[in-house]
Amino acid sequence: MKELEDRILADGQVIGNNILKVDAFLNHQIDPEFILRIGAELARRFKDEGVNKVLTVEASGIAVAMAAALALKSPVVFAKKKQALTQEGDVYAAPVFSFTRKEHLEITVARDYLSAGDVVLIIDDFLAHGEALNGLISLVEQAGAKLAGAGIVIEKRFQHGGDAIRKRGVRVEALAAIEQMKPGEVLFAVDEAEVAK
Amino acid sequence: MKELEDRILADGQVIGNNILKVDAFLNHQIDPEFILRIGAELARRFKDEGVNKVLTVEASGIAVAMAAALALKSPVVFAKKKQALTQEGDVYAAPVFSFTRKEHLEITVARDYLSAGDVVLIIDDFLAHGEALNGLISLVEQAGAKLAGAGIVIEKRFQHGGDAIRKRGVRVEALAAIEQMKPGEVLFAVDEAEVAK
Repeated sequence: MKELEDRILADGQVIGNNILKVDAFLNHQIDPEFILRIGAELARRFKDEGVNKVLTVEASGIAVAMAAALALKSPVVFAKKKQALTQEGDVYAAPVFSFTRKEHLEITVARDYLSAGDVVLIIDDFLAHGEALNGLISLVEQAGAKLAGAGIVIEKRFQHGGDAIRKRGVRVEALAAIEQMKPGEVLFAVDEAEVAK
Repeated sequence: MKELEDRILADGQVIGNNILKVDAFLNHQIDPEFILRIGAELARRFKDEGVNKVLTVEASGIAVAMAAALALKSPVVFAKKKQALTQEGDVYAAPVFSFTRKEHLEITVARDYLSAGDVVLIIDDFLAHGEALNGLISLVEQAGAKLAGAGIVIEKRFQHGGDAIRKRGVRVEALAAIEQMKPGEVLFAVDEAEVAK
């Protein structure tokens, strides 16, 4: 998605060789109209899959998931990163290691909101090592639901999480795929750029 | 807001005398079209305040804040509940006690995204003891920004957080205000019901 790549180049900040900070429009401050367009584009790519539920994980995925869900006319479910007191017992759970926070988390979804009849589109802001996405896929599998695929805003290809997941047969679409980066320089993968036009 | 009250009565679940679980449309599963209407109504109430930034706190506030921001044509900033590695130093911070999680948190906003020229509308899903709202107001004050007020989806009046905040001169609007509740019964305040029609 050309607009997204341009925005990453204009407002993104590369820290070291691994961290891309896009706090200006996605991860801390949100540009709502732009996020609507991002969500609509992700929805467009999965529009023929019969999706009836969009699944993401708190917190940065929520805005994009809502935008995609508006386009798909489906509800969003966001997995919680830690079991709060208002969630008792009846949940699907998967362990997730956060490289950003350097901590082990558990993500959970109440059984009430994910079930065998669902066709699920997973939405997330980043795909790097694939930790969060693997956790979300596990929740879908535990529910016995059908997985339509995963729509990702930014994939950091060089961290290879997406490779293993695609090999398992999961359709993963990223609106911007980064092959390589260092401070002041971001190199996008050509294939995604072509898809995005 | 009549539609919200009806939805709380239909899908909300009172646990004990203090916890209202609205996971079916707001806190875990999100009904995006409904959340858009909620956000638009909150935006309508503050439309003449010159708001140029909507501030909330992750995670449940994000969807509503995005909906309000779409109506106000402003960006959203969501405060983070814990400092991640990608946020270095330059933040406003306020302590918040979470009664739901029974833990002390720190909420932070990067200085880049809140400043003296801003007119800020705070949006949150719940107002109970006022912990989160007080923290958010503190962030606005630290930035030297102007506070337009706070738009809340559900206020639990009987926990009195809103009283103290209104006494300080902050305009607080809640779309549903609960005077009293117990399992199977939710009593709404009449004033808010009238405002909402």
